[in-house]
Amino acid sequence: MAVGADGAGSPPSVAARDAAWLPDIMATHEVGRALPGTFYTHPGLYELELARIWYQGWLFAAVASELPGPGSYVVYTVGACSAILVRQRDGSVAAYHNVCRHRGSLLADRPAGQVRNFTCPYHQWTYGLDGSLRACRAMPADLDKPRHSLLPVHAAEIAGLIFISFAATPPQFGEAGRLLAAMAAPQGLDRAKVAHVADYEIAANWKLVLENNRECYHCDVSHPQYIAANYDRYDAGDMPAPLARELAEVTRRSEERWAARGLAVTHAEGGLARFPSPDGSIWYSANRTPLVPGYTSESMDGARVAPLMGSYPDPDVGVLRLRTLPNFWQHGSCDHAVITRLTPSGPGSTTARVMWLVDAEAREGPDYDLRTLLPFWQLTAEQDWQICARQQLGVRSPAYLPGPLSPAKEYNVMAFHAWYQRALASPQT
Amino acid sequence: MAVGADGAGSPPSVAARDAAWLPDIMATHEVGRALPGTFYTHPGLYELELARIWYQGWLFAAVASELPGPGSYVVYTVGACSAILVRQRDGSVAAYHNVCRHRGSLLADRPAGQVRNFTCPYHQWTYGLDGSLRACRAMPADLDKPRHSLLPVHAAEIAGLIFISFAATPPQFGEAGRLLAAMAAPQGLDRAKVAHVADYEIAANWKLVLENNRECYHCDVSHPQYIAANYDRYDAGDMPAPLARELAEVTRRSEERWAARGLAVTHAEGGLARFPSPDGSIWYSANRTPLVPGYTSESMDGARVAPLMGSYPDPDVGVLRLRTLPNFWQHGSCDHAVITRLTPSGPGSTTARVMWLVDAEAREGPDYDLRTLLPFWQLTAEQDWQICARQQLGVRSPAYLPGPLSPAKEYNVMAFHAWYQRALASPQT
Amino acid sequence: MAVGADGAGSPPSVAARDAAWLPDIMATHEVGRALPGTFYTHPGLYELELARIWYQGWLFAAVASELPGPGSYVVYTVGACSAILVRQRDGSVAAYHNVCRHRGSLLADRPAGQVRNFTCPYHQWTYGLDGSLRACRAMPADLDKPRHSLLPVHAAEIAGLIFISFAATPPQFGEAGRLLAAMAAPQGLDRAKVAHVADYEIAANWKLVLENNRECYHCDVSHPQYIAANYDRYDAGDMPAPLARELAEVTRRSEERWAARGLAVTHAEGGLARFPSPDGSIWYSANRTPLVPGYTSESMDGARVAPLMGSYPDPDVGVLRLRTLPNFWQHGSCDHAVITRLTPSGPGSTTARVMWLVDAEAREGPDYDLRTLLPFWQLTAEQDWQICARQQLGVRSPAYLPGPLSPAKEYNVMAFHAWYQRALASPQT
Repeated sequence: MAVGADGAGSPPSVAARDAAWLPDIMATHEVGRALPGTFYTHPGLYELELARIWYQGWLFAAVASELPGPGSYVVYTVGACSAILVRQRDGSVAAYHNVCRHRGSLLADRPAGQVRNFTCPYHQWTYGLDGSLRACRAMPADLDKPRHSLLPVHAAEIAGLIFISFAATPPQFGEAGRLLAAMAAPQGLDRAKVAHVADYEIAANWKLVLENNRECYHCDVSHPQYIAANYDRYDAGDMPAPLARELAEVTRRSEERWAARGLAVTHAEGGLARFPSPDGSIWYSANRTPLVPGYTSESMDGARVAPLMGSYPDPDVGVLRLRTLPNFWQHGSCDHAVITRLTPSGPGSTTARVMWLVDAEAREGPDYDLRTLLPFWQLTAEQDWQICARQQLGVRSPAYLPGPLSPAKEYNVMAFHAWYQRALASPQT
Repeated sequence: MAVGADGAGSPPSVAARDAAWLPDIMATHEVGRALPGTFYTHPGLYELELARIWYQGWLFAAVASELPGPGSYVVYTVGACSAILVRQRDGSVAAYHNVCRHRGSLLADRPAGQVRNFTCPYHQWTYGLDGSLRACRAMPADLDKPRHSLLPVHAAEIAGLIFISFAATPPQFGEAGRLLAAMAAPQGLDRAKVAHVADYEIAANWKLVLENNRECYHCDVSHPQYIAANYDRYDAGDMPAPLARELAEVTRRSEERWAARGLAVTHAEGGLARFPSPDGSIWYSANRTPLVPGYTSESMDGARVAPLMGSYPDPDVGVLRLRTLPNFWQHGSCDHAVITRLTPSGPGSTTARVMWLVDAEAREGPDYDLRTLLPFWQLTAEQDWQICARQQLGVRSPAYLPGPLSPAKEYNVMAFHAWYQRALASPQT
Repeated sequence: MAVGADGAGSPPSVAARDAAWLPDIMATHEVGRALPGTFYTHPGLYELELARIWYQGWLFAAVASELPGPGSYVVYTVGACSAILVRQRDGSVAAYHNVCRHRGSLLADRPAGQVRNFTCPYHQWTYGLDGSLRACRAMPADLDKPRHSLLPVHAAEIAGLIFISFAATPPQFGEAGRLLAAMAAPQGLDRAKVAHVADYEIAANWKLVLENNRECYHCDVSHPQYIAANYDRYDAGDMPAPLARELAEVTRRSEERWAARGLAVTHAEGGLARFPSPDGSIWYSANRTPLVPGYTSESMDGARVAPLMGSYPDPDVGVLRLRTLPNFWQHGSCDHAVITRLTPSGPGSTTARVMWLVDAEAREGPDYDLRTLLPFWQLTAEQDWQICARQQLGVRSPAYLPGPLSPAKEYNVMAFHAWYQRALASPQT
């Protein structure tokens, strides 16, 4: 990006880095195998991933109810970039770099708040909700205020999910937006409230966390709660015949019941939906799957744990699953939804925020109890974080040799590698 | 510096570093704007600043009363250099590298103490207060003791303020010494005692802390206590006419009263005194300014908080302000003085020591109370540290574009940049 | 090491690093002086030491009683390498890299345990105690299991001491093994139990800790307990005549008494045994020395603190001292043995484990009391860690100039430097 001598211009993108070592590192990865340890430990590669993936793609940042009215804002920080997301007076969401145009102070250092304007706490330069510079006392009268607006960050609100991109020219959101909006509409995320937030520091590279998320080969032993409710542990190739018949039957019945409501089973096989696409070109995905008979919600005993959400007329809706790379997945039951947002915090660490959403009208106490709402995903998440931390300690060993991936179970890990290689090689700068 | 094969020689200076990247970084700074983020985050630049600025210039280290008699010592550590300052039997102060000439152990690992000799805790090599090697049992009889004295650090005591320089050939102290001695003499810092010390770790690069110190553009909102007592918040260009008349009148009356005592208002305008000099060549400064009517001391309510200091015959003395770059400023009221000493502790962190001084005879309890002595500068300091930490988080963003400085308010920030550029470009090695 | 395209092969060794700077650093060391500060602070040199010394030589890892039966295992981690040591069904000890051959997870993340197989906690790949891959569900049927065994680490058990080497081709253990086995046999370490373990993080480079261990020049003041029991503080050249006569008499009497038992004084002079050899070629050492009259054990008052160990028929056995570079020393009294195991944890930090061993039949309470067993070596160790931490702070100073070593007292420090230079220059890769 060209920046004028006076420092104004379009939002900055990160300069392409001189990374002469990148081809050598990439060449050490053999398709069909795990990634070599360098991918999870190299500080320069980590910086390059920030610049080419995290500062370029669309990142899930917040949910609609975190910005209830004009002037309400939240801060989301990724690497060295901090964004303010703020609800505009017309109801839309805008985002800006959280950096004063004067001497670079953070404008907002609290995670969320409510303002009429953004006033820099250092010298009180003041910006409107639209990012425009409104006041900067003691500066020369001829200061070109329009050239000193807050630098914009792209923002998109889709069915209650707010995404941002730090890129000068972000990837197209059109297809992704249409799919997510259509699939998520019945879940009512746009009128959900945040019942609970848990923040975790995972002692593992962000790619280990996503690889873990993209296969259920590890579920059998690690996730007893999860596999009791879902069919993911089996893939088409290894599902016992009785279970395959049960799944077909469950799917058929679901489809009969759901047809009238516009819902549909969109992933009717065992195993995880194929995502990303095998060539790594698709970074978003949505589908609805049936739950195991006896489960109406992803809860410890399968029973509902909150009032129905969105436009669901009854609890028989299976699970809505949404995902976008590099940082978001969501499981929506009839009564609650759980969102996971990843943020890298170093070559060997990742911050995860897990958010539990319920209907906006649901009251803690009469309508739901955190003791039954939280455990299913709290346990599942913490089980995964422990797995990833253990793997991080192993892959740094000079004795680690990447092993073969299971075509039957780890197809999505291979697809993730394809997505990663593509994303890293083609920075949108 | 040439060091003989036997390791003896004059005190070592840091070798000029191979910093081929320096011109490129320096070229990114546009005069009249804030410094780019690289200046506050680059580990190599930080090391270079240690070598070319902190290990070269004069650093305020301690006050006279910390070394009450022969053999009393204090340790001051900057980066990788640790100095012992010790009172000699003739009353002067000497300083040495706190490193044994045998195998490099620290000689003193406590911050202060009282000794007859310095005995290395490892193998008991023993040095006199003058740094000479007195004993080293079990070494060959022909060991050349005079060549194994402690390596000296330059030290200068000026009106109760002790400065050191790690340089082989430090900058001239003559002019600085004469000015500081003349201006500080009435304050009696040489016979003051330390009433309180507060140590802070500021999460900001040392240059952010100094830039913050060199402008009062931020005072209006951040420092309510400070601006009630001082005229700094206004500059010549923006001072309301009634205040300008008041300041002129206060200055005139002060001068009448002070003439007999040899005191003088040496900064009679609003705003901060111009320091460093616009071309960055002057690293020291001293002046006396009037306080706002009603204030006889920089205290919360303006009332005296301790007995008169030094040779002040009455409380009407305004404030004596002293500063040296890169690490010292002092505000002296009639009854107490407050010193701030900065020490860099990493690219993004700075240690600050704030010291409150009162007359040597003042007794805590009968004569002063920390509850009234401390708050004015404790609040002002902590307000600034918070500002700097917030700025450090912003300037690391790739979206930070250095904005324009206010010629009316931030003239000293520009002068600081000139000083910095000059200091970094011309190592005295 | 050549690794096949399928990731199988012999155990990996660390690739020789491109360390063009090494000769320049090595050239700064002058024989007969302390090492320059760079040796204790340079991150690249530290990594090179891991690769060329710590991943190549024999490392003491554990004692026999930590692996009481088949399937009992302990984990020992050095730098990025983690090894599992496991007792085989035939009683021997084997060791493996603690890294799953699938996606690199640690197999064992607890420090010790008891297993029938090693099952990876991630996807349950299962390995026998012999390291062979036994099960890997969902992988293609044609997966070549023998090529996916755990990668072996060399292991050797000598008289109850278990050593490992991460090298592809470790140094010969033959001579070392014969000497250690012969000397250690009477001590009965193979049938000793661990009475206590203390883990320390020393704020010093590992070489400072070893240099400290290889001289007793510092003992006089630092180790009052130790010098009361041992003759080390004096060397042949500085031992007062009465003491030299006492030592000669003690040695003579010991030899008379010990002859029948096959014990012998093998170091009959004052001072530390000469180790490593002056040219640095010998990395192991063992000898027996008399204690000062009145001491039958290295305890605070010289009295026995536990039942006799091994095959000792009476308490008059002096002290058995064993050492191997880079990480092990042991002092064995008639009744207990104390082992120190070093592990580097960064350029400026070292982990030390100190283990107290007593006879396997000794019962805490009736037979020994930790309050009398521990203090002698606990104090001595902690005194040394403090010395080393103080030295680490000093040697990083640009003003540190390596001083001359005492030929009379620090001969082993010079020998250690020779060993270090040799080990670093000749990687066995």
